[in-house]
Amino acid sequence: MHFASDNTAPVPPQILEAMIEANHGHTMPYGNDVTTTDVRDAIRIAFEAPEAEVYLVATGTAANALALACLCPPWATVYCHRNAHVEEDECGAPEFFTGGAKLTLVGGDHAKVDPDALARAIGFTARAGVHNVQRGAVTITNATEAGAVYSPAEVAAICAVARAADLPVHMDGARFANALVSAGCSPAEMTWKAGIDVLSFGGTKNGLMGVEAVVLFDPARAWEFELRRKRGGHLFSKHRYLSAQMAAYLKDDLWLKLAERANHAAARLSAGLAALPGATLLHPTQANAVFAAWPREGHRRAQKAGAQYYLWPMDQSLEGPGDQPLSARLVCSWCTTEDEIDAFLRLVEGGPAPAPVHVPG
Amino acid sequence: MHFASDNTAPVPPQILEAMIEANHGHTMPYGNDVTTTDVRDAIRIAFEAPEAEVYLVATGTAANALALACLCPPWATVYCHRNAHVEEDECGAPEFFTGGAKLTLVGGDHAKVDPDALARAIGFTARAGVHNVQRGAVTITNATEAGAVYSPAEVAAICAVARAADLPVHMDGARFANALVSAGCSPAEMTWKAGIDVLSFGGTKNGLMGVEAVVLFDPARAWEFELRRKRGGHLFSKHRYLSAQMAAYLKDDLWLKLAERANHAAARLSAGLAALPGATLLHPTQANAVFAAWPREGHRRAQKAGAQYYLWPMDQSLEGPGDQPLSARLVCSWCTTEDEIDAFLRLVEGGPAPAPVHVPG
Amino acid sequence: MHFASDNTAPVPPQILEAMIEANHGHTMPYGNDVTTTDVRDAIRIAFEAPEAEVYLVATGTAANALALACLCPPWATVYCHRNAHVEEDECGAPEFFTGGAKLTLVGGDHAKVDPDALARAIGFTARAGVHNVQRGAVTITNATEAGAVYSPAEVAAICAVARAADLPVHMDGARFANALVSAGCSPAEMTWKAGIDVLSFGGTKNGLMGVEAVVLFDPARAWEFELRRKRGGHLFSKHRYLSAQMAAYLKDDLWLKLAERANHAAARLSAGLAALPGATLLHPTQANAVFAAWPREGHRRAQKAGAQYYLWPMDQSLEGPGDQPLSARLVCSWCTTEDEIDAFLRLVEGGPAPAPVHVPG
Amino acid sequence: MHFASDNTAPVPPQILEAMIEANHGHTMPYGNDVTTTDVRDAIRIAFEAPEAEVYLVATGTAANALALACLCPPWATVYCHRNAHVEEDECGAPEFFTGGAKLTLVGGDHAKVDPDALARAIGFTARAGVHNVQRGAVTITNATEAGAVYSPAEVAAICAVARAADLPVHMDGARFANALVSAGCSPAEMTWKAGIDVLSFGGTKNGLMGVEAVVLFDPARAWEFELRRKRGGHLFSKHRYLSAQMAAYLKDDLWLKLAERANHAAARLSAGLAALPGATLLHPTQANAVFAAWPREGHRRAQKAGAQYYLWPMDQSLEGPGDQPLSARLVCSWCTTEDEIDAFLRLVEGGPAPAPVHVPG
Repeated sequence: MHFASDNTAPVPPQILEAMIEANHGHTMPYGNDVTTTDVRDAIRIAFEAPEAEVYLVATGTAANALALACLCPPWATVYCHRNAHVEEDECGAPEFFTGGAKLTLVGGDHAKVDPDALARAIGFTARAGVHNVQRGAVTITNATEAGAVYSPAEVAAICAVARAADLPVHMDGARFANALVSAGCSPAEMTWKAGIDVLSFGGTKNGLMGVEAVVLFDPARAWEFELRRKRGGHLFSKHRYLSAQMAAYLKDDLWLKLAERANHAAARLSAGLAALPGATLLHPTQANAVFAAWPREGHRRAQKAGAQYYLWPMDQSLEGPGDQPLSARLVCSWCTTEDEIDAFLRLVEGGPAPAPVHVPG
Repeated sequence: MHFASDNTAPVPPQILEAMIEANHGHTMPYGNDVTTTDVRDAIRIAFEAPEAEVYLVATGTAANALALACLCPPWATVYCHRNAHVEEDECGAPEFFTGGAKLTLVGGDHAKVDPDALARAIGFTARAGVHNVQRGAVTITNATEAGAVYSPAEVAAICAVARAADLPVHMDGARFANALVSAGCSPAEMTWKAGIDVLSFGGTKNGLMGVEAVVLFDPARAWEFELRRKRGGHLFSKHRYLSAQMAAYLKDDLWLKLAERANHAAARLSAGLAALPGATLLHPTQANAVFAAWPREGHRRAQKAGAQYYLWPMDQSLEGPGDQPLSARLVCSWCTTEDEIDAFLRLVEGGPAPAPVHVPG
Repeated sequence: MHFASDNTAPVPPQILEAMIEANHGHTMPYGNDVTTTDVRDAIRIAFEAPEAEVYLVATGTAANALALACLCPPWATVYCHRNAHVEEDECGAPEFFTGGAKLTLVGGDHAKVDPDALARAIGFTARAGVHNVQRGAVTITNATEAGAVYSPAEVAAICAVARAADLPVHMDGARFANALVSAGCSPAEMTWKAGIDVLSFGGTKNGLMGVEAVVLFDPARAWEFELRRKRGGHLFSKHRYLSAQMAAYLKDDLWLKLAERANHAAARLSAGLAALPGATLLHPTQANAVFAAWPREGHRRAQKAGAQYYLWPMDQSLEGPGDQPLSARLVCSWCTTEDEIDAFLRLVEGGPAPAPVHVPG
Repeated sequence: MHFASDNTAPVPPQILEAMIEANHGHTMPYGNDVTTTDVRDAIRIAFEAPEAEVYLVATGTAANALALACLCPPWATVYCHRNAHVEEDECGAPEFFTGGAKLTLVGGDHAKVDPDALARAIGFTARAGVHNVQRGAVTITNATEAGAVYSPAEVAAICAVARAADLPVHMDGARFANALVSAGCSPAEMTWKAGIDVLSFGGTKNGLMGVEAVVLFDPARAWEFELRRKRGGHLFSKHRYLSAQMAAYLKDDLWLKLAERANHAAARLSAGLAALPGATLLHPTQANAVFAAWPREGHRRAQKAGAQYYLWPMDQSLEGPGDQPLSARLVCSWCTTEDEIDAFLRLVEGGPAPAPVHVPG
């Protein structure tokens, strides 16, 4: 019963097989290999973006911070949701890579940036000219940190606000595949057709060992990106092992299939929890994460049985009245099973102890 | 005939097997898994350094730049050889991670820092107090960019100069294993017993997909290192795949065996070249790289037959008188074969065309 | 009728006389002159802080940013009021000088940091360890951007919250003299006795051409400060002209007398406005700035007659119903006269046109 | 006998008078005053550059570092002479303001960059593409740190090398006036007509309290400069006091007259020293600094009598054989007198003790 995060899961067999396959003969380093070229083309095709430049890095923090550094000068600010990963979970990487830009926090339900709040925040910025940090860029996360999904129309609404102020827009797509299969649109519709300039196209949370693609729909800053990537220590010499993973991820829509499995699992878990007495959902379950509250005694049973997930916020205590609801985050991955979910639900509900669960890998 | 770099080679089967083995079940992310704990202990044991803190990153540039950032404040300088990787091949990563420190270039044969030149450079620094960049740290590379190896006594001589000025010393050990088996000493003798404070313990050039360990023999700056690593985007969520590689690398002295194979290959290649008419060695061959010059016609034959290596410096031309010597760099890896070498030597010498060569992987 | 800012005023004659006096003979540069030594001692005496280190710079932004850079590492955050000068009026200087630290915005009435809100903000920080920006430092402004003054007890309450989290506290004292004469306490009571670690001791807004002192009550980071100052281009070669100003400022309590005059003027202006029909004060007038609202027609009369002040917020319009109140900021300086104030009040009220006003200088 | 530096001198009476004159009434801050507008126009006229943007800062380090930050991205290098002020005397300010760019040191006699050496250095840069720091900008100093002066033709030769590599050129003109009157050309001929893009137009060393102008002949980066200046804490609120100084400096060619006086003094001192037995000049005396060597006993006599100047390099000792030559740097200012010089020469030569010297101020 592993719901702590989608990054605790193993990788699907196709990924390992691709790496084994890649491990033959000599190849030129630093992305100058055929697989890398093929992967870049495959992403251009998947996004219907023949002009786009595509680069691989190994962590989502690197992808986001490098992308934002190309969009926002040091003396400007990046507008993001106050619960965005770039604000809360990257130890200041955007500030570091931009050379000291600011992050301006914007509200909105379910960790989605509210377009009106964004417009107000932009309007408030730099009203005193040179004395203020300037307007830099906008970043949104899809799927969000609260498990919600922006529709293409919602993305376009954000981009319209940004465009009115002449600002570029970045999408943190650490869970892009989960958002996409949830929204039921094409990669292009979710990104550049809605106004996105740069995408962090996540692979790691959806089944890779550690590969993210940065897709620059406008190639103007491609060389700057390459220099920043190298200077940040994020250019891999044995690049083929990143490319092989990404190639397998794209092949036969594996990336979409993995995300569908994770989303389905989350939907089942969400529905199950919502049906329990005293339980409520905190956010709509639109991708692979479930945010729910239920009575403390259900948490005690689950955690005692070894179920892994986070109380959310983390500072709640298992000690106290058993009927008081505590809130939690549960994340499903490509390998979450129905058995796992059902066993977990029985635990929370107070049914008989679950049988051991086998996790594939 | 692949001598362009040791980073064009595939990884040995033990590494892939370890990754396959690691790919079962769920593990906590970000290094909070058992394999990571075991690997850190194994490195402490290998270096006889129970107090050391050990961290994994995926690139040598990240390892070096993060290490130097912990040793040198923004207003100080890092003393390095003028041909050091940190100076010539990292696109300013040390400057970026330190927040704008300077690199002071020091001379010395075979890319080894000359202790007297280092002492003079240190003495020259900060003679006008607050007006100057201050003394920060010393970094040396072992094996060097010219394929030479510092003995423990030579390392100690550098460290003595540094210590006299109260400066910490970093070792870029991208090819540490090659240096170690060449010098025939223990890891501890080559590092902290000789005065090294922080080591970039390379794995990638010696057979891993992309794993380097940073070993802080003095753990005082460990937490700072962790923050800098995260902030630099170099903390991996699925950390187990780095740890599994490093564990396999250390197991049964695989790392030393791989380096021995590369060094042996380089020795054979070096001896063969030195014996050719008109050929000379530019640096002693002490690790896995050979620097040699031979007549242009030999280069033309080799390159026509598809041999991969760099003219060094790169701006020499294959056009011109056939008997004029051109210099080159040739790097052997763990999988360089005797057949490959012999075929190459025959080509350079002008003998019969070589048979096809099979490279394992 | 100049109420736009205290930085539009000329300097008092004593300051110019001191500069004329200083302009004789040769002196060693960069602060190695007798006047500088004397000034540093005078500040130590004024603050009863014999161990303190004191440095002069020319702008408040430099003073604040250099001070914060010594207190907060790049991967941490500075807690400040959301309307603080460091947040709103320094174009990201704290982010630049710290190397990319964050500013965490805290609420509180009258631009004073609320201690409970501060405690909550600190408690929220770094709850996920290495993934988050860490706790760095606290900064408060006295007098505040809203013209309010922290009492020593209020400063101590902030410092107690900071100390409980082991955080240093900086005070932006751009209007320190105004705060001090308002609170009626000693410099020591307002600063280190209440827990302040570093003070930006302002001179410019209170009558100097451009001199601020940074007072490090704990001298441990003095050398770092000196290096950061030089590296930031803020070490003056002809330092005597800064020191001469500061010496005259301190002599015979000129600094306190100037602040008293400005505060008295603001009190008169505040009382006069409050007594007008339809007028309200937005903040208590405790230092030299008045924040008030009154009917639009009063603003139209005042601005038509050339009165200089800012509508606050700035985006209000003079066009519209005459009886609707608009809010404004009015700042008095050491040379604001009673005649000026009275003339202004008559204008706002709708009385006869004022006679020309003479401003000393 | 004050030859330590030109920054130990007082300011000429015209400067103080201008500041007294400026000290009347209220003016808008941050350069939004009439004097500032006038000064900017005056500099445009003096340089025949109606399109240029002009900004004032208070220190030469700020002028240089801000200018270079606008010309060179963080991942590139600034080519400078190895004895340039930006390399040796600014504690890494260029590295700080650029966000971590490198300085590449180039040789040349008399602290002038040698064009061929520059071309080689540029050619050597970035030969391995993304792995290397890139080519950024060139900076030269006129007059140089060795008291030599580039002619317009020599400036043009440097700029031609830079232009061939598409690099902008900055001139550190801390002693621009001294260079100009020495070369006998117009400001335009020395700068943009020869290919200079940005000039640090010094005032401080030539008689101001602390004012330098940055002249951007290409105004494209003006707004960026303004933001960097503010963010660096270098935008003065009471800007009028900078502008008043600069206005007086430009009026009636005061700046040229001051430089002529300093240059004349240096010429007299240089000729006098060169005529002494055992004395030699180390560099041609083309501006206001003299570099000469003479027997140690002459130094002992001079320093015993209180003459102020630096042994150059500084680590030479007054102890030792009296006839051994020691080298020294002597800098003349606008207020150096013939009496001072002659008294000094008599001391060095071993004549009768000098009478007291009166320095104006």
